[in-house]
Amino acid sequence: MAERIVVIGGVAAGMSAASRARRLAPAARITVLERGPAAAYGACGLPGFLAGEHPLAALRAHPPEEFAERRKIEVLTGHEAVEIVPARRLVRARQDEREIAFAYDRLVIATGAEAALEIPGAEHRLLFRANTWEQAERLERFARERQPRALAVIGAGYIGLEVAEALARRGIAVRLFERGAGVLPSFDPDVAALVEAAARRQVALELGTEVRRVRAPAAEGARLETTAGDCDVDAAVDCAGLRPNVALAAAAGAALGPTGALAVDDRQQTNLAAVWAAGDCCESRHLVSGRPVWIPLGPAANKQGRVAGQNAAAGPPARFPGVLGSLALRVFGIEAGRTGLSTQQARQAGFQPREERIEANTLAGYAGRQRLTLKLIYDGASRRPLGCQMAGEPGAVMPRLNAAAVALAAGLPLDALELLDLAYAPAVAPIYDPLLIAAHRARDSS
Amino acid sequence: MAERIVVIGGVAAGMSAASRARRLAPAARITVLERGPAAAYGACGLPGFLAGEHPLAALRAHPPEEFAERRKIEVLTGHEAVEIVPARRLVRARQDEREIAFAYDRLVIATGAEAALEIPGAEHRLLFRANTWEQAERLERFARERQPRALAVIGAGYIGLEVAEALARRGIAVRLFERGAGVLPSFDPDVAALVEAAARRQVALELGTEVRRVRAPAAEGARLETTAGDCDVDAAVDCAGLRPNVALAAAAGAALGPTGALAVDDRQQTNLAAVWAAGDCCESRHLVSGRPVWIPLGPAANKQGRVAGQNAAAGPPARFPGVLGSLALRVFGIEAGRTGLSTQQARQAGFQPREERIEANTLAGYAGRQRLTLKLIYDGASRRPLGCQMAGEPGAVMPRLNAAAVALAAGLPLDALELLDLAYAPAVAPIYDPLLIAAHRARDSS
Repeated sequence: MAERIVVIGGVAAGMSAASRARRLAPAARITVLERGPAAAYGACGLPGFLAGEHPLAALRAHPPEEFAERRKIEVLTGHEAVEIVPARRLVRARQDEREIAFAYDRLVIATGAEAALEIPGAEHRLLFRANTWEQAERLERFARERQPRALAVIGAGYIGLEVAEALARRGIAVRLFERGAGVLPSFDPDVAALVEAAARRQVALELGTEVRRVRAPAAEGARLETTAGDCDVDAAVDCAGLRPNVALAAAAGAALGPTGALAVDDRQQTNLAAVWAAGDCCESRHLVSGRPVWIPLGPAANKQGRVAGQNAAAGPPARFPGVLGSLALRVFGIEAGRTGLSTQQARQAGFQPREERIEANTLAGYAGRQRLTLKLIYDGASRRPLGCQMAGEPGAVMPRLNAAAVALAAGLPLDALELLDLAYAPAVAPIYDPLLIAAHRARDSS
Repeated sequence: MAERIVVIGGVAAGMSAASRARRLAPAARITVLERGPAAAYGACGLPGFLAGEHPLAALRAHPPEEFAERRKIEVLTGHEAVEIVPARRLVRARQDEREIAFAYDRLVIATGAEAALEIPGAEHRLLFRANTWEQAERLERFARERQPRALAVIGAGYIGLEVAEALARRGIAVRLFERGAGVLPSFDPDVAALVEAAARRQVALELGTEVRRVRAPAAEGARLETTAGDCDVDAAVDCAGLRPNVALAAAAGAALGPTGALAVDDRQQTNLAAVWAAGDCCESRHLVSGRPVWIPLGPAANKQGRVAGQNAAAGPPARFPGVLGSLALRVFGIEAGRTGLSTQQARQAGFQPREERIEANTLAGYAGRQRLTLKLIYDGASRRPLGCQMAGEPGAVMPRLNAAAVALAAGLPLDALELLDLAYAPAVAPIYDPLLIAAHRARDSS
């Protein structure tokens, strides 16, 4: 009888797992249970949809039929897994009022993340979110049909910034609330400040301000009670962070790691027999600190899904080495990116972080101007590079951010960094890349 | 008495050596002998000057006074070194009719490269070159004052392409002759063909055609005798490749390596006591093949100069690890780049090259379109990545070319390449970078 592989969650990690499993186990019966109305879409494109740049359907990399017909993967949307019974190897799911049991030989959990914010009024009809297809659809419909003039966005991490920019592009006045002292908490404050300055040109940014309650005193419009006073807007969007969605797996006995996300080994296997996990619901190992971290980002989710799917399909053993938290963003006319540890993360991980920060042109001076601020973080004791962050004009970030990410993954020392043979042409790159200059200065200052 | 450091050659490698030596030996007397009229300029910007994008003076990263006044480096332009006498530690140089002897305690040779072409008529007044400040100045003056309608460019390597494009931008009809079967001989033919197609839209490209003689049958205008017949143009520009300029050093007993360039160890030291060499006049070690190679490119010249300068100044021992031949170019509206070994180079180095070539969008599909062709070359036996080449729309090349260069320098295996944590944002990069996809397919096809 054909082996049955069940995947819970049909977005990045889940669909990657199912597709990889299909390739390696051509005879298996593969079923994906997705509680939302759509599967296999790129959730990172939801802000672009909110901005009106493309329809929601554009986020589907493949049409739904492709999975059923070409890949022979059964994708059941509107099916919410409500219980995993490891002893009997079955998953109970709810579809509308029905409950259906799915037997599995091997299970992949890819339940993702959910909003972490808990504020009274959070279930309010004028409080929106933008993490999923259906949440974004609801918000976009509101923006289109009700033509709000003023919206609050809660949280100025990278998703909050992207959503705020998207709404501002629609001509909506956006007030962006952040309870921390600056935007982009995974960046060092001085690099984040460059993005903050760009954001302030297009939205009203309220830093150090916590939203305590969302109320609706009038027939239309919401009132936000914040630590800095009340604020009346047409509605609010909660982008105040995520937490791993682990309740289902935890109830079945899946172990959580120190981060609160599902604990997995480097094959993405949980402590439960025949159960793997991938994506935003599970933690991973940081390639620089070696410690467990929870950094919910799309590229890692896809790769973990692929590893989980390969192992669940009993293919050649696949391993996921870990993450650097590499992240890029383009918002408010500026590009920024990070990889590895921030100064604060480095300190928390027991390093003695030092930094070399430079301002540079990423083209030959005579060929053009493309400004970048680049910061290299390294350990004062071992002089090992720990992380790299940057912000600058569009196009300036990625050529050296990826180089830094590879160098961190490979564990290259400072003096190797300085002598890397990066590519050069006057109109495309500077003869000494800013990353190399930073490494040179860091070594010279020793 | 202050130590005397003499540097022969005042462009990339020479000025890097002098500047680094100054930093590490504050008391030394440092003299740079440059035979041309200008020193410390970015020769890679000469095509941009020819195109009229910027004045020649813009190629000076620092004003000439800076070296004399702030860095206390004596830069003597118009001084051609004509003899090195190692036994007496002196260099004889000629300035106009005078000959001057410069005593040295330590010497850095950075004599660069010179045109390799030997065609009868090559000293012809209508045959130009574009390798140095004075050559480019002469060609630009000709183009400006004589307003030629048709020019021939000989050689379709990256410099030939850049010069051809620069002249075409001035409205000149350019005929580009290449004796080889395609443009860009350091690229694989299939990737080079993409650049070739772009070039053909703006210049007349004559492949497999060798220029045998340059003549001037008329008062104005040159006749090129080629293997495909005669060709009448207003003048010709020789971009048909370079050879290391080693005559001076070789006459003094400096050893040449198998490539014909000066042999140096990883400290850039020659076989002569107290004599280092750097830049286009010397060979280096290829980081993938481990073999000596001669790849004259600016970034390596600068780094080698810095290493030579540091060692010549008796600073902490510096080592130059080697090169990958990383190269980018933007010509005719297309970007291209390479790093590591080409398929042909890999075969010559004893590998069994295999390739994975993909066409990809370097942005999320819904966020935009930026097409790229990427080719990963790896060893069929060890499955080790050997090289990477690409061509595509502007902006598509550098983010992954640099990542590939770092991966090659670090010796990462195929399966590590596939799982690299490169940065992502829909408007900036795809969720699976083409480099990772190529590595994945290469591994999967094993």
